[in-house]
Amino acid sequence: MPVARAAVQHGVDQPLAIEEVNVAAPIGREVLVRTVATGVCGSDLHMLKGHMGRPLPTIPGHESAGVVESVGPEVTHVRPGDHVVCCLSTFCGGCERCLSGQPNLCETRDLDDRPEGVEPRLSREGDLVHQFARISGFSELMLVHENTVVRVPDDTPMAQAALVGCCVTTGVGAVFNTARLEPGATAAVWGLGGVGLSAVQGARLAGAREIIAVDIRDDKLEVARGFGATQLVNASRDDPVKAVRALTGRGVDYAFEAIGLARTTEQAFTATRPGGSAVLIGIIPEGVDISVSGRYLLADRRLMGSSMGSNRFRFDIPKYLDLYRQGRLLLDELISHRAPLEGVNEAFEAMEAGERTRTVLTFG
Amino acid sequence: MPVARAAVQHGVDQPLAIEEVNVAAPIGREVLVRTVATGVCGSDLHMLKGHMGRPLPTIPGHESAGVVESVGPEVTHVRPGDHVVCCLSTFCGGCERCLSGQPNLCETRDLDDRPEGVEPRLSREGDLVHQFARISGFSELMLVHENTVVRVPDDTPMAQAALVGCCVTTGVGAVFNTARLEPGATAAVWGLGGVGLSAVQGARLAGAREIIAVDIRDDKLEVARGFGATQLVNASRDDPVKAVRALTGRGVDYAFEAIGLARTTEQAFTATRPGGSAVLIGIIPEGVDISVSGRYLLADRRLMGSSMGSNRFRFDIPKYLDLYRQGRLLLDELISHRAPLEGVNEAFEAMEAGERTRTVLTFG
Repeated sequence: MPVARAAVQHGVDQPLAIEEVNVAAPIGREVLVRTVATGVCGSDLHMLKGHMGRPLPTIPGHESAGVVESVGPEVTHVRPGDHVVCCLSTFCGGCERCLSGQPNLCETRDLDDRPEGVEPRLSREGDLVHQFARISGFSELMLVHENTVVRVPDDTPMAQAALVGCCVTTGVGAVFNTARLEPGATAAVWGLGGVGLSAVQGARLAGAREIIAVDIRDDKLEVARGFGATQLVNASRDDPVKAVRALTGRGVDYAFEAIGLARTTEQAFTATRPGGSAVLIGIIPEGVDISVSGRYLLADRRLMGSSMGSNRFRFDIPKYLDLYRQGRLLLDELISHRAPLEGVNEAFEAMEAGERTRTVLTFG
Repeated sequence: MPVARAAVQHGVDQPLAIEEVNVAAPIGREVLVRTVATGVCGSDLHMLKGHMGRPLPTIPGHESAGVVESVGPEVTHVRPGDHVVCCLSTFCGGCERCLSGQPNLCETRDLDDRPEGVEPRLSREGDLVHQFARISGFSELMLVHENTVVRVPDDTPMAQAALVGCCVTTGVGAVFNTARLEPGATAAVWGLGGVGLSAVQGARLAGAREIIAVDIRDDKLEVARGFGATQLVNASRDDPVKAVRALTGRGVDYAFEAIGLARTTEQAFTATRPGGSAVLIGIIPEGVDISVSGRYLLADRRLMGSSMGSNRFRFDIPKYLDLYRQGRLLLDELISHRAPLEGVNEAFEAMEAGERTRTVLTFG
């Protein structure tokens, strides 16, 4: 049975432990992937903090790219040696949502397609280790369903490709797929992590004429300018709703929230013009409600949620990588730090302090 | 100066007084309309109760149809003798919203196009009487901007046409224009007054395969069946969210709220499937917030407001009247009572008691 070094979470809010785990050989439609790069994402931090209520022990990580090591007998999409990007929006390809252009909302992805009685897919000293997000990317080896990966060209840079698997797809997709922002529109983006910067450049690519970046850190605001922001609002100094109105008159056509807080979602909504749309992208904890003025809503405003950029990742991810190759989508600039697997805990500390755009763990 | 009998509101929550008022002769783009029929609408009740914060004295009423008496020199859309339907979505025809397919959100409709120093348009014993909703339909004569009316065929039944001017346009438009419900979709409608019944039949006309009507009165639920409801939920007996889920599995594609309460809007939202849309149609009072689960929203759900059915009334109203002539849109069945102007206070009492679908006041 293959053995891999992995960062294992044993408890809530504890540092991850670098340990060896056993990974089963692929059966059915499973693919064994040798990890090349995994980004450290805010959703992993939510998992660490216990916000997700998922079982432990587990191996976090889900923003991954790698090379196929071996495949189960039913796999058709890839073969050994193929380069792949993982996406947690596993799709069955057969349910109503998958067949309606919304595979990100697949209704059966959590159904276990493994027969009863098979050995644990991930284990440590004989005990089950739970998979996170159907990926568990903080590991040298990932055992995933073939509909969790998309094949990409062999010359794709893997650290950049890993980011496309989650934060880029989420931010750009919220603009392209959820909001369907049209050329000449005005936009504002709350929160300038990897997702927010991706929303900023999604708005630029879609032809927005004004892109207002909102954050509480001046350094992040300056980074956003490089991604296409035309105006910057520091929300620790200025009321962002008033600032957006001062810049646009009646408010923006589209406002994006890329943090995951009720207050900033409510601000984004209130900063839209009549007929405008606010899009929640940030992962908001269970039990948190968003409260909006009924009268504001009645003026044909819309509050939308975007589940991972309403992605159809099998063709979205190759499309975004093409835009990168053309020099139109910035990916190199999203990577602020690279580290080995052992740097994962430090990466989380830096993320909590708001100090890094994105750390990518690189393997081997 | 023309004199008209009208129902005048002098105070909050007081009966309207039937009095004679003076109506100025039309100037500029004004049209003087002899009222034939005016529906008694929930928004008029909100005005009576003081929820709208508009100045008094005023003449409520806005769901009106009539015949053009005379026109100002700049009027081009109608001439004396034309039959017209009024709609409070007055549009300027020149602002960004009017030119973007959203004339219901016209940005300049409240600009007064009358020159300074002209006499009051409505008055009583020399004192100003404020116009309500740019119409004031509880009066034998209405002095309105030409962009507050649409010409309709001379043989159009006026009581039915009046309803199309507000509740029908609001309910059907929420389905056709705001939600853009597609054939085969599932829908639920909360509240079965004139607007809610119009949403029910809008969903039927758009090809919905399931239309769940939700109300607290069995008699209204039975009426909804005649408009196209396929299933009925009495929310005084059953939890409507659970009932909708029991009927549909994951929830409806589209949920419409036609009451104007936070609680029922929140129910409608919670009854949608992942990727579904909830549409607020009901006039919700100022200061009332709607609170929705962030996690629910994140599953690509949408909460939309519909401002008077996102109407483009100049072509929506003739379209709806055509559907009526074809026997596909029910209007006769919306009118539960007819009364002279003097019956206006009784009509409001019956509305508050939830006893009538719609009273139409008929003149002359």
